[in-house]
Amino acid sequence: MPTGDSALTIAINAGMSVVAFYVCVRVIPQFKEMFIKANLFGIDLNKPGSKEKVPEALGVVCGAVFLCTMFLFMPVPFYKQLAENTPGKFPHHEYIHYLAALLSICCMIFLGFADDVLDLKWRDKLFLPTFASLPLLTVYFVNINATNVVMPVQLRWLLGWSITLGPLYYLYMGMLAVFCTNAINIHSGVNGLEVGQSCVIAVSVLVFNFLEMQGEHRLGHVFSIYFMMPFLAVSLALLVHNWYPSRVFVGDTYCYFAGMTFAVVGILSHFSKTMLLFFIPQVFNFLYSLPQLFHFIPCPRHRLPRVDPASGKLTMSLSVFKTGSLPPLGRLFLRLFSMLGLVSVQTGVGQDGAFTQVNNMTLNNLLLKMLGPLHERTLVILQLLIQNQLVQPTILYRGLRSPRGKAK
Amino acid sequence: MPTGDSALTIAINAGMSVVAFYVCVRVIPQFKEMFIKANLFGIDLNKPGSKEKVPEALGVVCGAVFLCTMFLFMPVPFYKQLAENTPGKFPHHEYIHYLAALLSICCMIFLGFADDVLDLKWRDKLFLPTFASLPLLTVYFVNINATNVVMPVQLRWLLGWSITLGPLYYLYMGMLAVFCTNAINIHSGVNGLEVGQSCVIAVSVLVFNFLEMQGEHRLGHVFSIYFMMPFLAVSLALLVHNWYPSRVFVGDTYCYFAGMTFAVVGILSHFSKTMLLFFIPQVFNFLYSLPQLFHFIPCPRHRLPRVDPASGKLTMSLSVFKTGSLPPLGRLFLRLFSMLGLVSVQTGVGQDGAFTQVNNMTLNNLLLKMLGPLHERTLVILQLLIQNQLVQPTILYRGLRSPRGKAK
Repeated sequence: MPTGDSALTIAINAGMSVVAFYVCVRVIPQFKEMFIKANLFGIDLNKPGSKEKVPEALGVVCGAVFLCTMFLFMPVPFYKQLAENTPGKFPHHEYIHYLAALLSICCMIFLGFADDVLDLKWRDKLFLPTFASLPLLTVYFVNINATNVVMPVQLRWLLGWSITLGPLYYLYMGMLAVFCTNAINIHSGVNGLEVGQSCVIAVSVLVFNFLEMQGEHRLGHVFSIYFMMPFLAVSLALLVHNWYPSRVFVGDTYCYFAGMTFAVVGILSHFSKTMLLFFIPQVFNFLYSLPQLFHFIPCPRHRLPRVDPASGKLTMSLSVFKTGSLPPLGRLFLRLFSMLGLVSVQTGVGQDGAFTQVNNMTLNNLLLKMLGPLHERTLVILQLLIQNQLVQPTILYRGLRSPRGKAK
Repeated sequence: MPTGDSALTIAINAGMSVVAFYVCVRVIPQFKEMFIKANLFGIDLNKPGSKEKVPEALGVVCGAVFLCTMFLFMPVPFYKQLAENTPGKFPHHEYIHYLAALLSICCMIFLGFADDVLDLKWRDKLFLPTFASLPLLTVYFVNINATNVVMPVQLRWLLGWSITLGPLYYLYMGMLAVFCTNAINIHSGVNGLEVGQSCVIAVSVLVFNFLEMQGEHRLGHVFSIYFMMPFLAVSLALLVHNWYPSRVFVGDTYCYFAGMTFAVVGILSHFSKTMLLFFIPQVFNFLYSLPQLFHFIPCPRHRLPRVDPASGKLTMSLSVFKTGSLPPLGRLFLRLFSMLGLVSVQTGVGQDGAFTQVNNMTLNNLLLKMLGPLHERTLVILQLLIQNQLVQPTILYRGLRSPRGKAK
């Protein structure tokens, strides 16, 4: 449990988060018309017969409320030093973390919103995040510069207690931001999944931080708590409106915002490996998607499950293509995944010759393959439960079993 | 002239600015289609008969290139400390300036773009900039906290050499950001004026910084140069495409971006009063506009000069209203401005009774009142020349006459 100063500042942060939640819940509906007027809307493909315009990219409201909350909160942890204001005594090296973190997050919200509005090309989407991570990495370099990775117990006989990665570690951190962002983005397709998974991850991070707070890296975990509580608050507020049936969509903006917030907190609080363990379903979904993302297997524009108008339930969506058009690597993946029971492949002969159909490779479709048609709300609840189940061993193992404060 | 280390880093900054200019010039046309597709375009009201869609808000491309340039440049001034990386030796208190400045600028680019896309309400437009200036003011508080204002020579017998404003100074700085932003935004209406005036101001700031570099506040002026050169580069690139006849419009995004960049540099380099002297035409235009901004005198949606289709030249645009509907304060301003020769008032009697017509109160219309109809390009060149003329005494007086390094 937090004690002394941090207890007070964490309580203030919690109070501000509650306010942020209420502001966000109230404000989001007021923006709906404005977004639709600005041509930012989508039609929910999984609601048969509905032509209703659902405003898109409402994550930007969340992001703005989050930024305002953090701007207001930032002086709080430093209230003593600010009150005294003795020259040379202000802990610039701590304050710099907040600025670097918010700069990266703000850049990503901006980029996400630009993407939602302009439909940016891949090339454009890589420039800004790569450059935006530079200040973050500079701060990490001058303040932390720990590039060692503690080995899991099972590998220590081979690789020693820890290995130092040096510059590779910076490459890894740079890629972490890009990964978190996109992993949340592609694990979507049913109402509430993007925000829901982010809420589960945020809660997991918070539990982990509170468990680890007594350890050696106390400051890092307190820092993480300061960011995660307001983030969770605005995300829950968005979830209220994005839950099945969605009255608003969250847009790329939210995915970028959430992904960068997790990456920043993982990097600056130095628990990025643990952070990745909270992303297991996203990592699985990403790896599972790779053959389609690299176009070894044809990838339709939308891979979200499709609705069966008769039952109103969701079923797998399919990728259908000429069997002969499949490249060798595609055939290899198809056989491999088929052996592992990860895809359902069907072949047939049509007018144009032999064709193959396979379910699109997302976790959503895999669950539908295994469990049969499900209601949209059931599917998203199931996904969130799975995510929650998968983070628990990490928290238990990391937070309780490992030597206090040494867990990385 | 810069010497030693700063000479090298300034040269690197200049080199990167040149690259940023070429990137920006090349990239802007490539985004045109994307913006039009996203419904971000306008029709140029001053081109009779033209229905061409001119993409709007291209300032966002400038802003993104500026941010990337600065992210890349940021480690350069600290290359020695980064190479050594002795724990505890890194000048966090200097680095923090860069982060706080970029955070504020990034927030404003984001807000500006959101405004261009969503047409935000006034209320929403006040929240984010107010909060976004908090980190900036915190950094000013812990690093500089000079709240004294040096008095002009003419007033020193009355008020002393300088007076200390305390908290009022922070209020003044917070309002400076809002003022710079909006002052650039409302001094517009002819092709190239928003960017043109910003380029003139940026050049003036740069000349001032180079003149003052040997003085006491050397670090502040070098800091300002680091920001102003890339800013000037991307602005010139935008001007290439925004110059008469405009192929792109700059949008609120650019005005917000430019205004915040000037405010940040003025505040953190502690020459905000001099910065205001570079804004004389904007200040005049702002004060002159006040009766219309506060609706003492009716304010039509567009106040830009209107084109005379026959001659193709611009003439004053008018505000026409029933004479009886004018509030007392409106009548007072009208009489005052009329006495000073600042407005041309005409009255008449129409079907609905007595009406009054007066030119819209902007510097553009005032020049047209004084000089008669002008070609659009002539008007913008004239405006830029006036701006340039007005900054020269400031530079001469501040940079050369006042005791070196004491100029504020």
